[in-house]
Amino acid sequence: MTGDSFSEREIISRISEILGGVENDDCAVIDAGERYMVATTDMLHRKTDFPDIMNPWQMGWMAVAVNLSDIAAMGAQPAGVLIAAGLPPEADLYFIDELFSGFGDCAAYYGTKIIGGDTDRHDELTITGTAQGFVEKDLVLRRRGARPGDLLCTTGALGGAGGGLWAWQNAVESELITALLEPEPRLEEGRALARSRAVTSMMDNSDGLALSLSDLAGCSQVGFVVREEALPIAAGLEEMVGADRALEMVMSAGGDFELVFTVRPDELEAARRACALTVIGEVVEEGIWMEWGGQRRRMEARGYEHRIGGTDCTVG
Amino acid sequence: MTGDSFSEREIISRISEILGGVENDDCAVIDAGERYMVATTDMLHRKTDFPDIMNPWQMGWMAVAVNLSDIAAMGAQPAGVLIAAGLPPEADLYFIDELFSGFGDCAAYYGTKIIGGDTDRHDELTITGTAQGFVEKDLVLRRRGARPGDLLCTTGALGGAGGGLWAWQNAVESELITALLEPEPRLEEGRALARSRAVTSMMDNSDGLALSLSDLAGCSQVGFVVREEALPIAAGLEEMVGADRALEMVMSAGGDFELVFTVRPDELEAARRACALTVIGEVVEEGIWMEWGGQRRRMEARGYEHRIGGTDCTVG
Repeated sequence: MTGDSFSEREIISRISEILGGVENDDCAVIDAGERYMVATTDMLHRKTDFPDIMNPWQMGWMAVAVNLSDIAAMGAQPAGVLIAAGLPPEADLYFIDELFSGFGDCAAYYGTKIIGGDTDRHDELTITGTAQGFVEKDLVLRRRGARPGDLLCTTGALGGAGGGLWAWQNAVESELITALLEPEPRLEEGRALARSRAVTSMMDNSDGLALSLSDLAGCSQVGFVVREEALPIAAGLEEMVGADRALEMVMSAGGDFELVFTVRPDELEAARRACALTVIGEVVEEGIWMEWGGQRRRMEARGYEHRIGGTDCTVG
Repeated sequence: MTGDSFSEREIISRISEILGGVENDDCAVIDAGERYMVATTDMLHRKTDFPDIMNPWQMGWMAVAVNLSDIAAMGAQPAGVLIAAGLPPEADLYFIDELFSGFGDCAAYYGTKIIGGDTDRHDELTITGTAQGFVEKDLVLRRRGARPGDLLCTTGALGGAGGGLWAWQNAVESELITALLEPEPRLEEGRALARSRAVTSMMDNSDGLALSLSDLAGCSQVGFVVREEALPIAAGLEEMVGADRALEMVMSAGGDFELVFTVRPDELEAARRACALTVIGEVVEEGIWMEWGGQRRRMEARGYEHRIGGTDCTVG
């Protein structure tokens, strides 16, 4: 039996068994005295994780952004990013300058910096970013905590990255290509939502909305009803690919970096004061349901399956 | 000009320019309120970083040990390790179980655990470990701080990993092979030395003693005299490879995970109470000198050049 025969989730479940208790969150949580320290790591490879169109500066930006999005999903403030980079033989000075400027520019844009790292040689460009952050103990947001009756919400618009990939593959000019190549994690929104104390569970949707809902549902032992008409689909996406394809991208394409979260219904106004959000459904007892025109159908979990490490495995 | 034309140090210097101020230590240091958080990352590849002889459990152990050694070098207590693993197609269940058991066993041996990570597919096994730790602000140890007159010291014995590699390559039975395959970072010693308040600078010697001395000298703006006769050479090494080759391994082979540090001369006894150590020389104004039979010769920096990321680059 070779590695190819396992799914990401099978491997993660195996690993969890070996390593002990599992808390499945966007970041690991460590007691740092007055606050929690949160930490997350993501390994990205040239061929599987960076669209061919991406320039080296954007690869650098992306490698930091994916980790900062995990920090955002905990309601935390970033406190430094480490970068381990395996540089291929063909990387010239221009490439290295641009790549590392991308790391630094993304970190600086979000008020943090690259605090250390490791470089070595590798056949294929491989970048592992690790982000650290801090969050007040009573404000930390996790994937568990949603309760039936809570409102299901998202920041921003959905499906943009999937649409960007489609536009590029089909040689269509679209602003969504930038959404794909230069994602903007929702750090400010994550902090503001944590401070609002209105949120009961949260994660990012970097592997598509379907997998996020499946993970939130699993961690909170609840279900969701999603109202299709309420989904904030990225501007221009439906016009470009049609309504069905747009919905598929919202649910299953990776690369969006919005926050998906649940809010106590009597505190929706507090959450709205924290940041712009859209209510897309609500928490129910069980199952994940899509509702359209008053009809509900059960949804299967589908998401970005491009790489098996799309979802973080946070243990202990 | 391709990546192959750069040395590790040229790349690190380039990166430092792009990313801003550099503090060159085994870990990055972050203010965590009452204490410092320290963090370090290391990327390891199957072909370049793991001897062929290594079994998957040992690869897992090694990937955690190299990072814990950096935590030890700051005088810190580990507080969790993240693992990002790119698993090749040929990795079967046995391999994955053993690899992850190695991660977990090494972490547990040192009183910490694997707190999270990321898995994906990759042609070549690639593991990036990231370790976090905490240290009291007045106890943190850095590469800078050595002053002329301080005593140069090391824990343990030197050259064992180089000897183990030689023994394996030459089909000689030797206990040093275990030293190579299952290194034991000096966490307890690092903490005890930090608490002794006798130490003025410290780092690990994972790239060989010569590079450690060069780094300590550069960070502290000092020099060293090393007394060859005082070097604690690994048991059996000189008998196996001869005195000259043994010295070369002490200075330049990677894979030892001892602590190299400087001690205020009037506090040597306090340092000795903290842990077993050997005084191997002293701090001087400039230059790195080997002394033997009263003769001094200037030493060139040489070390483990197998991979360009042998030395951490810690920025900001």
